[in-house]
Amino acid sequence: MSLAVGTRPAKLGAMRVGYVQFAPVFGEKERNLRRIVELLDEKEADLWVLPELCTTGYQFTKEEELGELAETASGGPTLERMVRLARERNTYFVLGFAERAGERFYNSAALLGPEGLITVYRKAHLFFREKHFFAPGDRPFEVVRVRGIPLGLLICYDHMFPEAARVLALQGAWILAHSANFVLPGLGQLTMRVRALENRVFVVTANRVGQEARAEPTLTFTGMSQIVDPTGEILATSSPTAEEAVVVEIEPERARDKKLTPLNDLFADRRPELYRELLR
Amino acid sequence: MSLAVGTRPAKLGAMRVGYVQFAPVFGEKERNLRRIVELLDEKEADLWVLPELCTTGYQFTKEEELGELAETASGGPTLERMVRLARERNTYFVLGFAERAGERFYNSAALLGPEGLITVYRKAHLFFREKHFFAPGDRPFEVVRVRGIPLGLLICYDHMFPEAARVLALQGAWILAHSANFVLPGLGQLTMRVRALENRVFVVTANRVGQEARAEPTLTFTGMSQIVDPTGEILATSSPTAEEAVVVEIEPERARDKKLTPLNDLFADRRPELYRELLR
Repeated sequence: MSLAVGTRPAKLGAMRVGYVQFAPVFGEKERNLRRIVELLDEKEADLWVLPELCTTGYQFTKEEELGELAETASGGPTLERMVRLARERNTYFVLGFAERAGERFYNSAALLGPEGLITVYRKAHLFFREKHFFAPGDRPFEVVRVRGIPLGLLICYDHMFPEAARVLALQGAWILAHSANFVLPGLGQLTMRVRALENRVFVVTANRVGQEARAEPTLTFTGMSQIVDPTGEILATSSPTAEEAVVVEIEPERARDKKLTPLNDLFADRRPELYRELLR
Repeated sequence: MSLAVGTRPAKLGAMRVGYVQFAPVFGEKERNLRRIVELLDEKEADLWVLPELCTTGYQFTKEEELGELAETASGGPTLERMVRLARERNTYFVLGFAERAGERFYNSAALLGPEGLITVYRKAHLFFREKHFFAPGDRPFEVVRVRGIPLGLLICYDHMFPEAARVLALQGAWILAHSANFVLPGLGQLTMRVRALENRVFVVTANRVGQEARAEPTLTFTGMSQIVDPTGEILATSSPTAEEAVVVEIEPERARDKKLTPLNDLFADRRPELYRELLR
């Protein structure tokens, strides 16, 4: 994976990370992109995290809808538009999108910046009816760099699997960019806070708000996007309903230090020889 | 490992699990055992979880103290006394104790009942100055049965390692008995709540209270013992200072069902082929 260099963050050692919490309207990609731009407004960040499936909406009811709305990662108009936006604003975006790849569809997240598309992560753990429409992710969890800072991508229900965040952190990720469409209030916020502190990494969770009633049950998305630091402290959070863009300045390098006490490095203290069951 | 059969729980499908939260006095094993018996009082449970190192106290300052206070798992007077208590009360205990094994000392937890000592778990992840006195656990995480119910043992700082609870749950544990001496307020309670819900198991955490000032820094143990159900609901909790025994009736078999939705079994949804990094 190529190293995305870009320009340096605003302050040496500091990075402005943000999320956009909003209510996409199903199927209205143009409208949803405009809404993202409106919410970004005059705010500036080095890295923005957007929700899962944030331009198409979430509740697909038949595969033909995916055929109509999904795009390829390379050359798809939505990601090309986002790359232009990244150039205009000199920033990076992680956003969830419906990916078409040959005959298959994936619930994916793209990382892109002024230099173009950097990587695509395909959701490894599919939730509920996503299994009817999307193929499970088929690529290893991967760490990429944005302005020198190692970053990992997760999508929504990945939060329930401590293995996902752990694999990224063990590969060196300092920030986990987590695009979500949570419906269960507070659950993913709780687990991602623990993912942050058990791995001593930053976590930016961008959740959506609003409702979709295209099928039973009506889905109410629960917002409460959050940014958590490596000690589990919640640096920013939003309400269950607000549409807003929130930015926090962090020092990503704090995630390099895994020391809980002078004698406890959380990674050195692991006992992989006792964990074999995890791969069975 | 032999199956500990014992008598059936009070109600078919139900099990009364409890913890004893109290303030051991360092070095006063007889006094601490009496205090445990006092707190049990008239309360009845099928399984009691007691704190880490609950008869010796926690803050060892030199190895000679361990030489004096530690006991072998087989034939040690503290565990023999607890087996007699288990017989008198027709119950099972998990308790933390300082184990002597040849030239080594372990920070261990014993599971014992009317039939005697059932198993010993040696703490896999040692916290802070424990590393000066104890050897790290050298046995695989193991699931044993109490009255037919599969049980796993954890000690204190194991809480920070999602791998530990996961390995036990993947081996079939329905209840995690967790003996603790937490000093950081709320941290272990938060992580163990997530261990419960990410594995859909019950967790009984017995933490101690009180202070030990045998070395710098003075340690204040933070209580807030808790019992959590497989959805993460907190069924019981104590204050940071109270000495008390608390019992909750649970249906352990609820932990058999790993379904979060009709299409999501938390264990079947795992992707071990993507988790290889965990054993490196």
